[in-house]
Amino acid sequence: MIKRYRYGQPISTDTIVKSIPICDENIAFFQLENKEKMTFTYTMDDNDIIYGLGENMRGINKRGFTYISRCMDGAKHTEDRNSLYAAHNFFIIDGKKQLGVFFDAAGIVSYDIGETEIDQLIITCDDNDFDIYLIEGDNLKDIAKQFRQLIGQSYIPPKWALGYHQSRWMYKTEDDFRNIVKQYQENQIPLDAIYLDIDYMEDYESFTINRENLPHFEELVQEFKEQGVHMVPIIDAGIKVKEGYHVYDEGVKQNRFCKDKDGKNFKCGVWPGYCHFVDVLNEDNRHWFGDQYQFLLDKGIDGIWNDMNEPSIFYTDERLNEAYSLVDELRDSELNLFTYFKMRGQFSKLSSNPKDYQLFYHDINGQKVRHDKVHNLYGYNLTRAAGEAFERFSPEKRILLFSRGSMIGMHRYSGIWTGDNLAWWSHLKLCIQQMPNINLCGFLYSGGDLGGFGSDTNEELLMRWVQFGIFTPLMRNHSQSQRAQELYAFKHTEIFKNMIEIRYAFIPYLYSELVKAALSDESYFRPLAFDYEDDKQARLIEDQLMVGEAIMIAPIYEQNGRGRFVYLPENMKLIRMRSLSDYDEIELEKGNHYIHVGFNEMIFFIKPNHIVPFAKPALTTRDMNFDELYVLGYVQDEIEYTLYDDDGYTRDINQPEHFHKIYASKEYCDCKTKKVQYR
Amino acid sequence: MIKRYRYGQPISTDTIVKSIPICDENIAFFQLENKEKMTFTYTMDDNDIIYGLGENMRGINKRGFTYISRCMDGAKHTEDRNSLYAAHNFFIIDGKKQLGVFFDAAGIVSYDIGETEIDQLIITCDDNDFDIYLIEGDNLKDIAKQFRQLIGQSYIPPKWALGYHQSRWMYKTEDDFRNIVKQYQENQIPLDAIYLDIDYMEDYESFTINRENLPHFEELVQEFKEQGVHMVPIIDAGIKVKEGYHVYDEGVKQNRFCKDKDGKNFKCGVWPGYCHFVDVLNEDNRHWFGDQYQFLLDKGIDGIWNDMNEPSIFYTDERLNEAYSLVDELRDSELNLFTYFKMRGQFSKLSSNPKDYQLFYHDINGQKVRHDKVHNLYGYNLTRAAGEAFERFSPEKRILLFSRGSMIGMHRYSGIWTGDNLAWWSHLKLCIQQMPNINLCGFLYSGGDLGGFGSDTNEELLMRWVQFGIFTPLMRNHSQSQRAQELYAFKHTEIFKNMIEIRYAFIPYLYSELVKAALSDESYFRPLAFDYEDDKQARLIEDQLMVGEAIMIAPIYEQNGRGRFVYLPENMKLIRMRSLSDYDEIELEKGNHYIHVGFNEMIFFIKPNHIVPFAKPALTTRDMNFDELYVLGYVQDEIEYTLYDDDGYTRDINQPEHFHKIYASKEYCDCKTKKVQYR
Repeated sequence: MIKRYRYGQPISTDTIVKSIPICDENIAFFQLENKEKMTFTYTMDDNDIIYGLGENMRGINKRGFTYISRCMDGAKHTEDRNSLYAAHNFFIIDGKKQLGVFFDAAGIVSYDIGETEIDQLIITCDDNDFDIYLIEGDNLKDIAKQFRQLIGQSYIPPKWALGYHQSRWMYKTEDDFRNIVKQYQENQIPLDAIYLDIDYMEDYESFTINRENLPHFEELVQEFKEQGVHMVPIIDAGIKVKEGYHVYDEGVKQNRFCKDKDGKNFKCGVWPGYCHFVDVLNEDNRHWFGDQYQFLLDKGIDGIWNDMNEPSIFYTDERLNEAYSLVDELRDSELNLFTYFKMRGQFSKLSSNPKDYQLFYHDINGQKVRHDKVHNLYGYNLTRAAGEAFERFSPEKRILLFSRGSMIGMHRYSGIWTGDNLAWWSHLKLCIQQMPNINLCGFLYSGGDLGGFGSDTNEELLMRWVQFGIFTPLMRNHSQSQRAQELYAFKHTEIFKNMIEIRYAFIPYLYSELVKAALSDESYFRPLAFDYEDDKQARLIEDQLMVGEAIMIAPIYEQNGRGRFVYLPENMKLIRMRSLSDYDEIELEKGNHYIHVGFNEMIFFIKPNHIVPFAKPALTTRDMNFDELYVLGYVQDEIEYTLYDDDGYTRDINQPEHFHKIYASKEYCDCKTKKVQYR
Repeated sequence: MIKRYRYGQPISTDTIVKSIPICDENIAFFQLENKEKMTFTYTMDDNDIIYGLGENMRGINKRGFTYISRCMDGAKHTEDRNSLYAAHNFFIIDGKKQLGVFFDAAGIVSYDIGETEIDQLIITCDDNDFDIYLIEGDNLKDIAKQFRQLIGQSYIPPKWALGYHQSRWMYKTEDDFRNIVKQYQENQIPLDAIYLDIDYMEDYESFTINRENLPHFEELVQEFKEQGVHMVPIIDAGIKVKEGYHVYDEGVKQNRFCKDKDGKNFKCGVWPGYCHFVDVLNEDNRHWFGDQYQFLLDKGIDGIWNDMNEPSIFYTDERLNEAYSLVDELRDSELNLFTYFKMRGQFSKLSSNPKDYQLFYHDINGQKVRHDKVHNLYGYNLTRAAGEAFERFSPEKRILLFSRGSMIGMHRYSGIWTGDNLAWWSHLKLCIQQMPNINLCGFLYSGGDLGGFGSDTNEELLMRWVQFGIFTPLMRNHSQSQRAQELYAFKHTEIFKNMIEIRYAFIPYLYSELVKAALSDESYFRPLAFDYEDDKQARLIEDQLMVGEAIMIAPIYEQNGRGRFVYLPENMKLIRMRSLSDYDEIELEKGNHYIHVGFNEMIFFIKPNHIVPFAKPALTTRDMNFDELYVLGYVQDEIEYTLYDDDGYTRDINQPEHFHKIYASKEYCDCKTKKVQYR
């Protein structure tokens, strides 16, 4: 049961697809205080767990910190970061009461979940205009599902998007790209996509090609496509202020950009220097911005990642002038404790400074709205522009699309990646913990940069990240590091190859579970408590996940880890894989286990009476035969599995012929080379 | 067996107290390459573990990262920090071979432990002048002990230093201090020390008192002392450049300061603005600097913490001018990607910039030595100056002394704290993992700032940190946070009180184990592998520690943790304490367990046939009766425990009458209120 409460006069976020009447009662369960900002308070039991809030720092259970929904570009994701790139305003309270809560707000919302007071959940909105939805249900899964039905079906990527992707902010020339792809092929490591970071553009101008480095860009795209490898370019939000640059010229002429207080096009610094932002909160501008993507689709591109769309602001003249003035004021004096740190602080706070959100305006249906009031809508609508355009330009085939900035609602158009993580073990763990909460907020196609984007990775960290990444729908190795982190750049190339082959082999299961989760409004990644609600210990487990209907994972995420504790909420079968042809299957009893896991091993668990269908890997998903399947399973007698499969790109997904029944018996599972006849 | 190898002409570090002849063979076990910098390489098996390197980031097993011994002030201890405040150049390889390795070097040493190549341990020295000691022994403990015998007996603090200490960079006036102490007393929370951070000084000038805020400083010290509470002031390394300030005037007159390349007193910015550094590498200057401490001892002070002695440099004119010039160069142009990040980087790299270490010089026995060649000796010798002075001024009584900057050798004069950690859960874990490695390097009296120094803590994090801190010899709550983090500042004051009472009750055991470890050159905190060398799983455990001879701890260090996995290498007794009068004792079998641990509970484990003597707590250690002891134990028949106890301050420690035999039987342990007659 969903109840909707309205406060003030909210700007529509277009998040909700179902019409829910506004309830005129006082809000239930929460205590509302009408101070300068409205606050909603809920008193938690020691036993209460808070799930959700999507892409954020810290554990699966969000208690113990304050999270602020304010899409923010920031490179160091330390434990005290309140905001990442997303505004995912949905959470579920699980304890003495089970309750789903969604703040449908365009502005900033903050969640103090037991930080200030250990048992108080305090929600504060910067602006007093929003809807709140309270969702009650039979259990956690039911509440989550009701929410997903409210916000509409999640984006489903093409099947090749489940292949392995290689990226690095470093590849520039055609030879660079050819060399990378060639090395993957020579090392027989599967690869489905190679990424174009900002250097492929001319002067970092979105929708241009650097012809000096990529004179035959179209041919290169085609050449790779013939090998089954997709090129995926980045698009940045900031449009460079430069006469002669077609997007700028047309944008100025057609009045597409956000305005400053004087009505001039708002200017700030991003990658290319001074930029304008397209006012994508206006439908017409969104359509116009979406049209720009045709430039890339025409060149054979069928996958895009949208970046810097929080929007990221490196600097404004206002902030720079403050810093310069302070230098002028202080440079001839002896710096003391206060002046020194003030000066340093002024420079370190130039970027992503929320004060800059007050400097520009949107035109929403003729209404002038200051950016900070609708900040979280920006990245969402920029990516929505792309998603809507792809439906126009590619009505048959799905296009790969994922975004850094995001808000719930955008999940219908796009996936997300978790942004500029670092080559830190704690970020591998964070990535594991983010996945189920991101799924709860509707983003099923997601993943973190394997090995870490910033800082230098090392072989063991990358190996463990890859072993977890086998299960993330988006499996991309991306970095800005000095150190090469392609999978052939380390000592144990063969082990990396084995792991990527395992990923490819599992694509039938992963794709089937991903699409089924999208179609049935369920989660692909789940905390254990969603499947084992009454299990006290399962509720406390923060480092194991359910993946689809059959699998539980317990990744190794610690430096020098050669084993780990695992809790089994019921009897399960442990699969310990070194490669597709070299693995152990061990039945384990419900309870606590310490599992030794070698550097070259990936483990996972199969639930009783469940199977994992798999296929023979190939160097690309295109070259795989998805009609010949094998089965790993933990089956007593005979079970039935519903496999979703299709051509891999049709937009018309929900067709009966895409659903196939697989019957597996104990013998099938014991005889691993027997082909499963599923059609 | 210890072998000493010499390279170049090392400057004496005064670390070694034993005379070991120089071996003229080629170094064993390592491959030496004589490139521009010497490199020593050791090939590790997958099974090899590296213990040691003292105060550093990351796990107990140091594999997988590069650590640089370069004492460094830096506030954000993120996973990619190569250096903290210490130069602890000792480690033990444990695997196919067991080998202790000590680099006795005054300069920078870097340890690439499988980061660049997963199986290669590569050691590089910036300067080719050092001794290497290789230590072989019967087992890990034996190797560790041989090393400790080589470097001399660890510092032993007075007994009151094992009490609970309260600190915050915020207390200024006499009323502030009185108020804090009063609140502890009113809440009946034991307290032995309150700290004076930099604000107690006049203009941050070491060895001065801010008389505006503290007009009756001496009386305040006395007033607290009568209540059993010690005031512990900070001393900073930088001496403010200010005529009329006696330390500056005398230092200039007597030529005590480090020189720049032109022979002028080297000047750089720290807390008070421009400062000079006393050249404590010169014995005469060290004596002079030590003499300054009499100023504080004369006022009744009997505990000091030395800070900023890496030495910390906020800025030099050289670095500032580079930054200002860049601003001049860029301010009139449009900033692009490169210029913008260059400018920001210039300001963020002002502090603790290693380039500044090349700007000043020491006079070592008449030899002019550039600072970077002997950088790691600085903090060591500044604290040594204090330690040596305390022996002169207080020949009977031990004085509390601990330092931020450190190097092995300083362990004979002082303890250390782990510097400016943050209110991060990962830093609680780091603190746990640092302790055994810091002990291996000779620093037994140590601990981290409970609750975290920077960032805002919360009640649960502080609670878990306190529950771990019960076992750290230095148990200090210190912060610079906006949020009050005194133990009465949260909801569950009673639980904090219970935990501090448990700490006080255990002081007989903690003090006994600390002093015995110092006298016998053993570790107080040990990784499990040191006690259970042949246990494969024990070698992998990174979050449990042995504390003294009887206890194993398994702290809760995760947000919302209400339980954890624990590995018992043998049968043990679990003690789950809510307070001294409310606890469970449960015998558990060797193996893997999941232990539920409430927010209000502290757990630890007692080894078979071991006991933990304890006393009744009081509001200060002074008011405790250490002659009336009780026993917690896990005893089958009867066992004997050697208790060290003394008056708590005598310097003449190793006296037979300080060692007492306690005999405990099963009945004693079962009857917890029975007084143990140990004399």
